[in-house]
Amino acid sequence: MTIPVQEADYGFKTANEMLEWLAAFGGSKSGGVTRLLYSDAWLEAQHALKKLMQAKGLDARFDEVGNLFGRRIGIEEPESVILTGSHVDTVIDGGKFDGAYGIVASLLAVERLYEQYGPPKRTIDIVSLAEEEGSRFPLTFWGSGWITGRYNLNQAEHIYDKDGISLKAAMEEAGFGAKLIPVERRKPKAFVEIHVEQGIVLERKKKSIGIVSHIVGQRRYTVHFKGESNHAGTTPMSMRRDAMRLMAEWTVFLSNEAEALDESFVATVGKAAVKPNMPNVIAGEAECSLDARHYDSSVLDRFEQKLMEFETQAKARSVAMKIEKWMSIEPVALDKRLAESAARQAQRLGLSYKTVISGAGHDSQVFGGYCPTMLLFVPSRNGISHSPDEWTAPEDLEKGIQMLMGELYALAYA
Amino acid sequence: MTIPVQEADYGFKTANEMLEWLAAFGGSKSGGVTRLLYSDAWLEAQHALKKLMQAKGLDARFDEVGNLFGRRIGIEEPESVILTGSHVDTVIDGGKFDGAYGIVASLLAVERLYEQYGPPKRTIDIVSLAEEEGSRFPLTFWGSGWITGRYNLNQAEHIYDKDGISLKAAMEEAGFGAKLIPVERRKPKAFVEIHVEQGIVLERKKKSIGIVSHIVGQRRYTVHFKGESNHAGTTPMSMRRDAMRLMAEWTVFLSNEAEALDESFVATVGKAAVKPNMPNVIAGEAECSLDARHYDSSVLDRFEQKLMEFETQAKARSVAMKIEKWMSIEPVALDKRLAESAARQAQRLGLSYKTVISGAGHDSQVFGGYCPTMLLFVPSRNGISHSPDEWTAPEDLEKGIQMLMGELYALAYA
Repeated sequence: MTIPVQEADYGFKTANEMLEWLAAFGGSKSGGVTRLLYSDAWLEAQHALKKLMQAKGLDARFDEVGNLFGRRIGIEEPESVILTGSHVDTVIDGGKFDGAYGIVASLLAVERLYEQYGPPKRTIDIVSLAEEEGSRFPLTFWGSGWITGRYNLNQAEHIYDKDGISLKAAMEEAGFGAKLIPVERRKPKAFVEIHVEQGIVLERKKKSIGIVSHIVGQRRYTVHFKGESNHAGTTPMSMRRDAMRLMAEWTVFLSNEAEALDESFVATVGKAAVKPNMPNVIAGEAECSLDARHYDSSVLDRFEQKLMEFETQAKARSVAMKIEKWMSIEPVALDKRLAESAARQAQRLGLSYKTVISGAGHDSQVFGGYCPTMLLFVPSRNGISHSPDEWTAPEDLEKGIQMLMGELYALAYA
Repeated sequence: MTIPVQEADYGFKTANEMLEWLAAFGGSKSGGVTRLLYSDAWLEAQHALKKLMQAKGLDARFDEVGNLFGRRIGIEEPESVILTGSHVDTVIDGGKFDGAYGIVASLLAVERLYEQYGPPKRTIDIVSLAEEEGSRFPLTFWGSGWITGRYNLNQAEHIYDKDGISLKAAMEEAGFGAKLIPVERRKPKAFVEIHVEQGIVLERKKKSIGIVSHIVGQRRYTVHFKGESNHAGTTPMSMRRDAMRLMAEWTVFLSNEAEALDESFVATVGKAAVKPNMPNVIAGEAECSLDARHYDSSVLDRFEQKLMEFETQAKARSVAMKIEKWMSIEPVALDKRLAESAARQAQRLGLSYKTVISGAGHDSQVFGGYCPTMLLFVPSRNGISHSPDEWTAPEDLEKGIQMLMGELYALAYA
């Protein structure tokens, strides 16, 4: 298979220049980017990155699932590997920064370090991870999950996209899969990822760098309410079994409980529907989502226990409730020593920073259970992500690269 | 235009027999009835009723808009008219009882009175009103509104159904309209309507007859909430502008206020939607309906004032709110003396009864502002109406006819 690759002179000086170039692979009319795993746009982007890595003098290669590595070999301890990068895939009509910035920042940081200090003592691998978003197949972290041994190739057989194509078939069609000679895999000494915050904390607090201490655990539920549909005019309040009213009470209750539990606890009812959904008919049924996140699973447990107390209220309204938990992801604590080193680095560089919790999932949470891992954030304008409106100021992108250079220096050169 | 009319021997003894016969005009597979104003099914039903009235010895005629009258002339005071009946139109896939029962009960009551006592002193007009539901054109009470002078024919020109047919065109196509010789119209001494409750109060309270003192006023609103859509994981509770959470608080607030205001006050949020409606995204927008009803407009005013107090809460959540009132119907008090007479009648007949408020609209509310008006209810199983499942027990239908006979005797014979 020949992959058409957009020509570039590779003379990128800033993150923005490189991000614009990369965004052309899968660029949409709305100014967003769509690069679903193993799609043409995704494949072109990975092959373009491979050519760019080669042009920069890196040893570039794919692994079995399509993760792309660009290696700058260490001259003193070549077997010690510092891994840095992020993911190349996007959601449908996503932004130019999510994932891509981590790859771009790594490429620029490693290049500048090489120009300034020559080859590193320890090996640096820049990685463009195949998949993180779960936007094509009902699975996330395929790239980092493969590297860390969470996933194996057999699992790819029974996972299908919306067109019924299996992950295995898509992977093989793109030129990957078991037929490739297995790539030598060595557990890295550290994984370092830089990413846009996808939140509003850094912007609101006017900080340039976020040093992530934890990635939250997530639990997701679907909640069903079954009351009785009745005439809105002829049914006294006392005789109602109003599913909408109980869903509203539930939303108020859980939001208040979440706030009371811990400052960094978040709980969201983002999806809701009522039936029959008519102004003059009492809703007989209602359904809503619940998304709860915190960095400590015992706090998530306590929240769940609190929710049980609502049963009394449902009974009082004669509305039946069913709570289905369909997702449960454990929180991950990232490496403390690396985070402390990042704080010192920021102070040295004179960059304002804040220790933060990541409320979104990232590849770092998969690496966090495998090797010492550091995750850094730069601000996102208005907290917007997964949208063509995703944006980070060029000076913030640059400050992120400086942080990453400092950290990679400490890990691979010092 | 020739109208095919289903043959019948007209030997109906019970309300059920006559209701089944009438339900065949516009009968649906689901066991419901669809008779939209001026549709073929509607027209066949009205012409069949005309033939039936004629077979019963009544003087039957249509007025300009298609209201059908069957007259039993009074022998002492023929110019004094007692009007009794209900509407022949239905909602889409409605029940067999709503409206139809009032016509059927009037026909049977007048027939039995004639068999027992001969011709009345005062004239009795049985009316099958053209339209009450508003299910074809965006207007309600076209039949009673025409009789009472609320509407005129000019208004029919600029009201359209969903296919773009004007009320005037549909009316003329059905054989009605200005071309008909105007019908002599005399203000009735009284209007008496019997109807299924469409509510659960009589059933729950185990009463056979409801004597309606008031028909509620209705106010309907659409409420818009505009906050900010954001990531459910990365946005702390304190930084949110969550439209769903505020809509939930609003629903809880207004439901509690409605309950506190008055036992017979009802307020319903029956329709609700959030945007973008995703489990992991804070809702940036929300919209819901509000339907509030009470028999005293000053109480409805007080409720509206209470709603204004919620503004503080919306401000606290940084969510903008807009409340649009798009319907305001005044409450109607029905005739007190007629209601007292109905209570005495029920006692005399040994029927359990209850003075009730009608939470639904009825033709009686239009007549209520025009002539002394009485509205009686019989129970509805589970309060269900506007559905093929609408049902009233045969013995309750019969008790209703006995009440109606008693009242018509008092008004037209005594």
